[in-house]
Amino acid sequence: MRFHTRKWVKPGDMNPNRTLFGGRLLEWIDEECALYSIIQLENPKTVTKFMSEIDFRSSAREGDIVEIGIEVVKFGTASLTLQCEVRNKMTREIIITIDKIVMVSLDENGKPKPHGKTKIEFVKDRLEK
Amino acid sequence: MRFHTRKWVKPGDMNPNRTLFGGRLLEWIDEECALYSIIQLENPKTVTKFMSEIDFRSSAREGDIVEIGIEVVKFGTASLTLQCEVRNKMTREIIITIDKIVMVSLDENGKPKPHGKTKIEFVKDRLEK
Amino acid sequence: MRFHTRKWVKPGDMNPNRTLFGGRLLEWIDEECALYSIIQLENPKTVTKFMSEIDFRSSAREGDIVEIGIEVVKFGTASLTLQCEVRNKMTREIIITIDKIVMVSLDENGKPKPHGKTKIEFVKDRLEK
Amino acid sequence: MRFHTRKWVKPGDMNPNRTLFGGRLLEWIDEECALYSIIQLENPKTVTKFMSEIDFRSSAREGDIVEIGIEVVKFGTASLTLQCEVRNKMTREIIITIDKIVMVSLDENGKPKPHGKTKIEFVKDRLEK
Amino acid sequence: MRFHTRKWVKPGDMNPNRTLFGGRLLEWIDEECALYSIIQLENPKTVTKFMSEIDFRSSAREGDIVEIGIEVVKFGTASLTLQCEVRNKMTREIIITIDKIVMVSLDENGKPKPHGKTKIEFVKDRLEK
Amino acid sequence: MRFHTRKWVKPGDMNPNRTLFGGRLLEWIDEECALYSIIQLENPKTVTKFMSEIDFRSSAREGDIVEIGIEVVKFGTASLTLQCEVRNKMTREIIITIDKIVMVSLDENGKPKPHGKTKIEFVKDRLEK
Repeated sequence: MRFHTRKWVKPGDMNPNRTLFGGRLLEWIDEECALYSIIQLENPKTVTKFMSEIDFRSSAREGDIVEIGIEVVKFGTASLTLQCEVRNKMTREIIITIDKIVMVSLDENGKPKPHGKTKIEFVKDRLEK
Repeated sequence: MRFHTRKWVKPGDMNPNRTLFGGRLLEWIDEECALYSIIQLENPKTVTKFMSEIDFRSSAREGDIVEIGIEVVKFGTASLTLQCEVRNKMTREIIITIDKIVMVSLDENGKPKPHGKTKIEFVKDRLEK
Repeated sequence: MRFHTRKWVKPGDMNPNRTLFGGRLLEWIDEECALYSIIQLENPKTVTKFMSEIDFRSSAREGDIVEIGIEVVKFGTASLTLQCEVRNKMTREIIITIDKIVMVSLDENGKPKPHGKTKIEFVKDRLEK
Repeated sequence: MRFHTRKWVKPGDMNPNRTLFGGRLLEWIDEECALYSIIQLENPKTVTKFMSEIDFRSSAREGDIVEIGIEVVKFGTASLTLQCEVRNKMTREIIITIDKIVMVSLDENGKPKPHGKTKIEFVKDRLEK
Repeated sequence: MRFHTRKWVKPGDMNPNRTLFGGRLLEWIDEECALYSIIQLENPKTVTKFMSEIDFRSSAREGDIVEIGIEVVKFGTASLTLQCEVRNKMTREIIITIDKIVMVSLDENGKPKPHGKTKIEFVKDRLEK
Repeated sequence: MRFHTRKWVKPGDMNPNRTLFGGRLLEWIDEECALYSIIQLENPKTVTKFMSEIDFRSSAREGDIVEIGIEVVKFGTASLTLQCEVRNKMTREIIITIDKIVMVSLDENGKPKPHGKTKIEFVKDRLEK
């Protein structure tokens, strides 16, 4: 799994119990999946369609640094299925895991649109073609 | 299902495709589950432990009003299982449904703490006792 | 008075004295009045025109849950006058009361537009017609 | 009236009708009154107690610059009464006026605390004493 | 140097070390330079092009009030060079100084556009002409 | 240069000219430098002390994805000097470059504290020791 985006847990991200607000964490994950898919499918109109069950295994405290990892599970015709893991950067403790997040590529009318992709591409390779 | 909290979908809640940002919606749901549980369990230290799968059935546009409904599925010893539905207030179109959200009541050390509740209470009745 | 929307007072809602920031509370009230009016008048272009005096009777602390109640005072030709009360969900202590909030329905040019409504409607009834 | 703080009306400050969200404006006003009073009364524990009626005379559009003016109406024993006006910096059109905003100086227990001030002081003079 | 905009350092503006988050401060400065330039150049399409080195001389704590001062260094053909200083309102301690911030006036195609200004104008004078 | 954190440019990140708000970009960079340094120096109390000049070479539009790259320039006694580059993920166009950002490790009293580090460490290696 490749970990890219990192977040610094700041006061505004906390719940009143002074642990990381779960809603904020879900927001971060959803954004990361969206941008990962947009890059891979080369279609900015890519949306979240489904998330499998979410187990909050541990939390984070103010000042912790979390990083969000994404792995591709499957390329569908108009979809891309991802796996996501969030962990604490210093301790490598896992905070949350989501096995299956289905992103869908849409056309201008909001209908599923085949993306023609079958494997992960790195922008570097894509540009050098 | 009882619907309480309502949200007005404002520009800052949108994704770049100009539909409601899914991460924002998950944030709203998590907050609503937290405050519903805190009221029912009378313990401010109540956290989200698990969410079952999430199907994004429709979206919302800028200016739409969404409302968040919560129903109790089960009272556990230290937990409370909720069901959640978000719908468009004007059209009643369902945006998202989550069958099972497990909230856990914690003690000062962050360990599960029996809450002693077995059924929904209305604050009104509680105060009149 | 009917209470719908509930808010969980989080760290980002506090002022430096660690009580609920009054400006945040006014923001929540204004949003609630706007969405309530939009639903009743069936016109998304409904704006706040006037608020009568505001007495900050008590405050809220981090982790408190507040709920916002709205009651219709009067249906005007192009306006809707509301009364608003915010209270602490657990203690029922009143935080703020505003006797008169005038919302106005506008046409595309921003001019007052008669809304033709004379009494509260529930979306349920409206849809069943 | 002296105008200090200026705000640039950005996309995140708009309501779905694409005019300045009234709740955001009230938030800005409340913050400005708080910091003005804290400086004058030299007590960081100064809170908003009362606002007289608010007339939304005009609005603002995205990209507009608004400035917030404050004038002292009266020094009470533990209170400070302010007048507030918000206007469009380029056109000088008035957006909102509030005749009377009562701020109260509190002690550590949250009780009103005499501030001993009777007239406006400029920090410059205060430091030079 | 003229100081206009003031900010109240609130919990959501802090970093996890409980001092003012530097990124927030830079955001405030950038907004102030933008709106100052828009007013002077009478062109809403004015953007930040360059900032000279930034020395973080001191920080601020929760509840502090900071004010942002701007001074014009030079009027270019399509640009405006500003100097900026942020200080603590009560103690006058300097928090940050930036000697040179270059703002550029753009036309509809995003190309530099001569603004025809050579000296500071006060809106008051401009309106009275 | 290693690029980690990615951001999706959303409506709330825009300025009124509908390009990425420069202040938001500076906020993102400051956060990335802080968390990068905290991980390397293993001291959560690490703050931004200095930034060399900033040239805004290009901007980003709504929906763009930007990524933030960090490279270590020098390990000082109590400091860490970084270089930062932000680019558009799809086009690889550079948005901003900052040659020198000095971060300082502090002790509990806010005084510079030697960190004892002389080269980049990967958490993986650190944990395996």
